[in-house]
Order: sequence, then C-alpha cells, then structure tokens
Amino acid sequence: MTIPFETLKSEFKRVLLSLNFTEEKAEVCATIFAENSRDGVYTHGLNRFPTFVEHVKKGLVKPDAEATKENVFGSLEQWNGNFGAGILNARFCMGRAIELARENGIGCVAIRNTNHWMRAGTYGWQAASAGFVGICFTNTIANLPPWGGIDRRLGNNPLVIAIPWKGGHVVLDMAISQYSVGKLNQYKSNNQELPLPGGYDAEGNLSTNAADILESRRLLPIGFWKGSGLSLALDLLATVLSQGNSTAKITQREIESGVSQVFICIKPGNSEHTAHLIEEIIDYTKTSRPEHEGGSIFYPGENTLRTREKSLKDGVLVDAEIWGKVQGL
Amino acid sequence: MTIPFETLKSEFKRVLLSLNFTEEKAEVCATIFAENSRDGVYTHGLNRFPTFVEHVKKGLVKPDAEATKENVFGSLEQWNGNFGAGILNARFCMGRAIELARENGIGCVAIRNTNHWMRAGTYGWQAASAGFVGICFTNTIANLPPWGGIDRRLGNNPLVIAIPWKGGHVVLDMAISQYSVGKLNQYKSNNQELPLPGGYDAEGNLSTNAADILESRRLLPIGFWKGSGLSLALDLLATVLSQGNSTAKITQREIESGVSQVFICIKPGNSEHTAHLIEEIIDYTKTSRPEHEGGSIFYPGENTLRTREKSLKDGVLVDAEIWGKVQGL
Repeated sequence: MTIPFETLKSEFKRVLLSLNFTEEKAEVCATIFAENSRDGVYTHGLNRFPTFVEHVKKGLVKPDAEATKENVFGSLEQWNGNFGAGILNARFCMGRAIELARENGIGCVAIRNTNHWMRAGTYGWQAASAGFVGICFTNTIANLPPWGGIDRRLGNNPLVIAIPWKGGHVVLDMAISQYSVGKLNQYKSNNQELPLPGGYDAEGNLSTNAADILESRRLLPIGFWKGSGLSLALDLLATVLSQGNSTAKITQREIESGVSQVFICIKPGNSEHTAHLIEEIIDYTKTSRPEHEGGSIFYPGENTLRTREKSLKDGVLVDAEIWGKVQGL
Repeated sequence: MTIPFETLKSEFKRVLLSLNFTEEKAEVCATIFAENSRDGVYTHGLNRFPTFVEHVKKGLVKPDAEATKENVFGSLEQWNGNFGAGILNARFCMGRAIELARENGIGCVAIRNTNHWMRAGTYGWQAASAGFVGICFTNTIANLPPWGGIDRRLGNNPLVIAIPWKGGHVVLDMAISQYSVGKLNQYKSNNQELPLPGGYDAEGNLSTNAADILESRRLLPIGFWKGSGLSLALDLLATVLSQGNSTAKITQREIESGVSQVFICIKPGNSEHTAHLIEEIIDYTKTSRPEHEGGSIFYPGENTLRTREKSLKDGVLVDAEIWGKVQGL
C-alpha cells in the first residue's frame, strides 16, 4: 500500500512528540524517517521506526540529549552526542561540517556517543543540497569477520561520498558488507538464491544461499580482504577522530549504541566548470555497452531521484503491517 | 636475487641524474622507488622503473617541472603538477596537507596534471610517519567496466587510508579492482587459477581464470556494484577538487598521464589515549578465530613492516632481468 508523504511524516511526529521529543526535534526526526522511506530506503524509514521507538523507551536513545562540543582545533571539531537520536546528531554534525567548509574550504566533525543514523545517505544528500562535497561514515556493532578469520570482529561501517551536481547529486551510500543481514533475511524468506556470493557456508565455501550464510554468520565484506581492511580503517578513523567507542567497545554492549561517526565537508570549485566536469564523467560512464540488451548504467543516487519523484506523486510505499503497528504506537 | 637497499637506490639515482633530474629530485625519486621494492611492492618499485624512464624520455613525465599553486581557500589548496614526476608531486602535496592539518586540524590538497604516483601507500606512510591521519586517492586510465556495463569506463583509482600508531602504522592501500592487470597476467603466466573470482569470462560468467578475464577485459571492481560506485565517486572527487582531468579525459590520451589526485590530512587527538584506542581495535580484530589452523589475522600495513625489516637485513628482492636492464640504462 502507499501513504502520502505528509501522512507518514505526521504520524512519525505524533509518536515522537509522545516520547518527549521537542516540537523541533520531532519535526526533523519525523521528516528524515519519512524521507528515507520516500527515497526507497524502507529499511531505514518506516520499517526501522518501531525499533527506534523501542530504543527510546529502553533509554538507549535519549530524546532530550543535546550534542556538546568537546574539542576544537581549527576546522576539526569533536562533539559528544550524549546518546541522543542518531538522526539529530548526524544532521547537526554535517551542518557544522558545512559551516566549517564554508569558512575554510574543508571541515571535519567527529562525534562520539551517538546512535544509529538510520540511512547513511541522508547526510550526503544534506551536504550536496547545500552545494558541498560530503563524506561521512559510522562504525557499528561487529557483523563481519575480518579477512582470514571466522568470528565477527568488524562493523559494516557505512561510507557515504556525495558530490553536488545540478543534474542530480551523486550520492554513494555503501555499507562494507556485500549484503546486509536484512537483505539476506529477505532472500532466505523468499527462498531465493543471491545473485552473487554474499558469504560462506558452514564448510567455508563461497555461497549464494542466504540461509547458509546467516547460519555460518560469515558475511562477506566487499572485495574480500580489501573490504575487511576498509572496514577496519573506517572504524579506526571514527574512533580515533572522535575519541569514542570502537566496534570492539560497541559490540561488548550487545545492543548497538554509543557509536562514533565522522563528517567531512569540502567546498567544490567554480560551479559552472565543475558541473561540466561531472557531466563529462557521468556521460562517459554511461557510454559503456550494457551487459544485457536494453540495460542501463546508473550513477549512485540516480535511481533515488526517480523513486523520490514517484513516491511524492503516487504516495510512499509502506508495509501495511508495520504501518498499522506505527499507527498503534 | 637480492640487492642492498642502498645499491638499489643509488642505481636509480644515477639513471635519474642522467635524465636531468636535479640532485634533490633524483634523491627523493630514487629513495621512493627503492623503498617501494624494499616494502615488497615490487610492481611499483624496480619493476616499474624502466617504464618510468620511458615516460620521461617520451616527454610524458617532465623532470624539471615544479608544481604551481592555482587556488587557495583556507585549508583547501589546488595545485597544478605541470606533468612532473608523480612521486615528487604526490610527496609534495601530502607534505602540504600535513602542514595545513598542523595549522588547522585538517587540510586538503588537490592536484591536477600530475603523473602516476607509483605505490599509493607511499603517501599514507608519509602522513602516518609525521603523526597524521592521511587519506589520498588518484584517478587512472579506464580499466574497469561500470556495474551493468561491458566496456571499461572507470579507473581502478587507488585509495589510501593511513592511521599513525606507535605499534606500526595502519596503512590501507587499495585499488578498486579486485585484482590488478599485473596480478592477472602473473596468474595467467603461471597457469594458476585465481583464489577468488576476479572478473567475467566471454560468456559473462564470474571467473577465476585469469586468461579468460584478460580476454573479456571485464575485470571485477571490489564488491561488484559497490566498487563500481566507489570508483566513480573517487574520480568525481579527484576531478572536481583539482579541476583536472577525469578518467574519461585521461583515457582519450591512451597513455596514462596528467591524472588528478587528492590528499587529505587530519590531526589525530591526544596521542596516549589514541594509541590505546588503536591497540584495542587491532587486538579485538585479531581475536577472531582463524579460518585455517595456525592462520593469523593481519591489519593493513602489518606485513609491510615485516617485509621492510627483512629487506633491510637480507637485501631487497629483485628480478634479475629487470635489475640488469636498469643497470644498463
């Protein structure tokens, strides 16, 4: 079923207000949850909202927390999220990074003790919409084994790179796992094979069987040893720059909270020429012959715009059961 | 065969001086070429030196070029490499980024019209040795198809993330292709199967046969669609921030030259506590049970230190034929 964007948003806002979020915080949080579903990232929009509410009720996410500044060194700032809503902290930090880049060409804000920011790409779109290059990443609870190992010790640490472009911002939003646990569960429920290997089975063979991978808990990082190294590097950066919790520390708590995040903003050059350079790159990429007849090559973020347009026109696609659940909250 | 590090370096220096590099430039270039072999990255040390010399002789790399500053905006600088040696330009830019970060917490230097920087990790080690976090990347000639396409339109755009640590710097040095063309050629010559899929065969099936992949020219980016997006994003960043040549433009020239690169440096926090955080992350990662009995889990850069130590003790491993060739230059 579909729901008008505004209905979705006001329902989220109603629930958030009942949880003691201020009018302003409820507005921002509700908007972003609704936008995540609007843009097709259902897993971090409506579908995640009940868990978010649960985390607020359990005290893992504090509705009245305000981020506090801990250290400033030029264009580099460290903040403490004080266990507030990840969406609010992340939006605030990317806003600060934009201001720092506006003043000084580049800015970096690292935050510790924050919570899950839902859709990582949200903050890339934020930077790009303000006309800035945005790079951000978060650490997470351990859900990937390191290369050469069996037990999970690395997070899937989503990484975002956003480039503003008048043709439609380029926003790469990429977790380091080849498939998320959510996606694997979806393939398992549908009894479908993964299109590409997503992990290992119990015998240590690469597998396209979601159930076997979930059973072995050996999900694949992108590019095998390369993604393993990238995930580790992102956790190190997030932890070191924020002086916050590492994946190791977060995992000890069993429920993911108090994560560390980094937001970098850079001011791109002359806008007219820059737009031309971006167009040249995208056009060239699209001239590759498609693998399948009639196929197309898309840049990261391109399909998001189509889904957004469709959602605003025809309503946002929702899971009826979860929508009913949220209405009952 | 093995050669003492100093012999390797002075032989490189002799050749570079004969090509009209100044004493200082020859010293830096020779040192880095020798260090690349010393650290086990033979492909971008001795083995690449003859090609570098050829590029100098062809005028693609200009021995007397000096990088010139084009734009400054706070902690963000744009430079023109004027087609000088990539090693010299890259080392200079990371040096500038370190200075900017020292003054302002974070610094970013983008350079256009530069050349192949040989081992990407060199500049990560440079930043980490100075006590700074270093992030850098370059675009390249097109050598990967975009996701959904057959023809090469993306570079393998190496990405480096370096974190200084007293236990031995963490230096991730990662091209976006799962295997390099050089590595595929090596497997092909040895008639060996790749340990993991590295691209597609002519029928469009994932393949571990290096010859088939080289024939189809469909090398795999790490993580399939994810690496494809990451490669595109890195090219966009390098091109936009430097206002330089994109992979599209570089590919038109057929021989790779005039590439675009970005160097970001960040000042990490309090050193004592930071070292402890890094140790915690690395120790935790290493507690994963190894996949194979007696196996170990390594962090990026860890094995480099072992190879370096061995090379300095026992001499640097060289290919006798290439070594002979360089001696004859």
